[in-house]
Amino acid sequence: MEPSLTPGSVWALWHAMRDKGPLVQCITNLVSMDLMANTLLAAGASPAMAHALDEVEDFVGIADALLINISNLSSDWNAAKKLAAQKAVALGKPWVLDPVGCGATPYRTQMCLALLQLRPTVVRGNASEILALAGAAGSAVRGVDSTAESHEALDAAKALARRCSCIVAVSGATDLVTDGTRVAGVSNGVPLLTRVTATGCSLTALIAAFLAVAPKGGELEATAAALAVFGLAGETSLAAAPRPGPGSLRVGLLDALHIMGEAEVLAGVRVRVMEG
Amino acid sequence: MEPSLTPGSVWALWHAMRDKGPLVQCITNLVSMDLMANTLLAAGASPAMAHALDEVEDFVGIADALLINISNLSSDWNAAKKLAAQKAVALGKPWVLDPVGCGATPYRTQMCLALLQLRPTVVRGNASEILALAGAAGSAVRGVDSTAESHEALDAAKALARRCSCIVAVSGATDLVTDGTRVAGVSNGVPLLTRVTATGCSLTALIAAFLAVAPKGGELEATAAALAVFGLAGETSLAAAPRPGPGSLRVGLLDALHIMGEAEVLAGVRVRVMEG
Amino acid sequence: MEPSLTPGSVWALWHAMRDKGPLVQCITNLVSMDLMANTLLAAGASPAMAHALDEVEDFVGIADALLINISNLSSDWNAAKKLAAQKAVALGKPWVLDPVGCGATPYRTQMCLALLQLRPTVVRGNASEILALAGAAGSAVRGVDSTAESHEALDAAKALARRCSCIVAVSGATDLVTDGTRVAGVSNGVPLLTRVTATGCSLTALIAAFLAVAPKGGELEATAAALAVFGLAGETSLAAAPRPGPGSLRVGLLDALHIMGEAEVLAGVRVRVMEG
Repeated sequence: MEPSLTPGSVWALWHAMRDKGPLVQCITNLVSMDLMANTLLAAGASPAMAHALDEVEDFVGIADALLINISNLSSDWNAAKKLAAQKAVALGKPWVLDPVGCGATPYRTQMCLALLQLRPTVVRGNASEILALAGAAGSAVRGVDSTAESHEALDAAKALARRCSCIVAVSGATDLVTDGTRVAGVSNGVPLLTRVTATGCSLTALIAAFLAVAPKGGELEATAAALAVFGLAGETSLAAAPRPGPGSLRVGLLDALHIMGEAEVLAGVRVRVMEG
Repeated sequence: MEPSLTPGSVWALWHAMRDKGPLVQCITNLVSMDLMANTLLAAGASPAMAHALDEVEDFVGIADALLINISNLSSDWNAAKKLAAQKAVALGKPWVLDPVGCGATPYRTQMCLALLQLRPTVVRGNASEILALAGAAGSAVRGVDSTAESHEALDAAKALARRCSCIVAVSGATDLVTDGTRVAGVSNGVPLLTRVTATGCSLTALIAAFLAVAPKGGELEATAAALAVFGLAGETSLAAAPRPGPGSLRVGLLDALHIMGEAEVLAGVRVRVMEG
Repeated sequence: MEPSLTPGSVWALWHAMRDKGPLVQCITNLVSMDLMANTLLAAGASPAMAHALDEVEDFVGIADALLINISNLSSDWNAAKKLAAQKAVALGKPWVLDPVGCGATPYRTQMCLALLQLRPTVVRGNASEILALAGAAGSAVRGVDSTAESHEALDAAKALARRCSCIVAVSGATDLVTDGTRVAGVSNGVPLLTRVTATGCSLTALIAAFLAVAPKGGELEATAAALAVFGLAGETSLAAAPRPGPGSLRVGLLDALHIMGEAEVLAGVRVRVMEG
């Protein structure tokens, strides 16, 4: 079946992912572990937060997909990330790179570039991170929060996708996903998600879960589907929240991912092919 | 007083634990720290997440009980776990082993076996972990989630308990607790707890808190009591949740542990002696 | 403008902090990361949980304030804390020390003293920690929870503030803040906050955020303002909680910080100058 990007195709992937319950290995920063593992569990996947040098490759062997977030930069972890990425590529398993804070410090940027060379299936960042990663001059990255809008990073994302033969996703008010030629847009989500730590990191892990069930050649669509489902969960969470704050939003996000059914997906996801 | 296992004895232990507020030292994996510390605090105990090599033994000296979860496998942490376990045994303080993901990788299994030799008071795992730990051939462990039912692991649990002279608890739809001869069953809990990360880890820490007030020879009963109280908190949380999802369940679990009183315990815990 | 301490001045600082959205670099223990980052985000600041040796000084260069919590005691982290503190002082940026569990073990006390020599702007601890840090003989510190009341530590806090030329804040039923001569009191907060892990740690990070907008010479007032706002958020959270437990309190705390407006601050904060 040809990959497509419609509410119906998002639902089909979401259903397939929950049916399979893929094991997603996560090598991530310390602050995101709790929400990331809970996001995967709520969505029906199975997280494995396994990064120890002595077992990291064995774990890739039993995992269905791999998430690498660069933002725990200790030397042991950096070595584990490289081993895991290499093993995933060797085994033909999808892996996703989250270049958190790329551009904020020279060391961080260097680590992102080193991992980029290990052929991720998908790279997901905010506009500033993608701009910095693509080497777009003049990008001002401040901390790990984005200072640019996603559309400003589209040209950089396309160039990056072509150079690395991967999918690049840029989070923002409208999320953009590109393989260098085609561009998909996702308009789900609420601004308050940026006031909850680790939502971007957790979203990237959900992309890995979707990739575990994506057909070959359907990585762009699977990435967009994960973005849409996660954003929609944010919307329904905020609508149901007793108080419109980030504490309630975070709790409800997990509830919404767990509960989200076909009718909600079909009525709520806003995805479209913008180019190609 | 002879240890017994009834709703009344569970309440007596729960009340004694909250009255004492034991200091429970936890050496655990990174993803479970937040929920584990909050579980102990909600239950009335005092957590100390202390694992640094230079102070780990000193902390055992002031702690009332010790929890060791094997699942942060860096070399520093592995050394700290061994020092802490040895110190606990030397001081006659109870310690509990959580063999997370035992069987998933050879390295992980090896680390579990090394700690098992340091004479834990209680071992708590899911069926797959206990099967793997007991060396039961044919156990298929997938990630850190259980693929076997608890009753399948009962024979393995009994053999393990006899070989190591410890209590072994197997979590599942019905939790089983054995000293190798006697078997207790606990039927509290809700399946959705498996969709919240670190609930198993946190439960094991609560066992340590109960052991801090258990009479000598009453370790089996104290372990079963902790399982019952934790499971009951899950039930009351889900019943009171605004939406039946894992986000609300987790929040309500902590509320329920904090609030749980005598009437609720007497009416809600489902414990029984199955053998012996 | 002369620094002052009234509900109106607390509101002015709170408003200025949210308007600026300062980047607060946090080097903290593992169990507090999630709540700390979410506290800063809910309050309108931007957290950076950056501690890697290879970038920690670069991050101080882009941060507006720095929080150092001593309680991850691995050698890499200890070195990073020292580098970060030295860099903050060199750049004239405020930094706050949280001496968690000072006195519990000799190693921990030694690490606190080493950091104290690096000239923190503010030190925030509970009474036992401040007593231990000040070298007040006879202080019994049990784990990381306080066994003394804040007023018992006032003399020790004053002496410490004078010796180190810093602000010292002692948390308790009434929080006390002193520069060695003047003393401010804050009476916001609820006892149940002590049943949620990392609330003290997160409060200290919020002090750093306030310092980022405090006028020179207004550090005492900014510290008291942060204590008042955090305590008030706890009060409004508990009042609005569906069940009066620590799970709901934690969720609502973040909602309350995000939502808290001028009328609430003016009506709710309880601050006063007690001496000087």
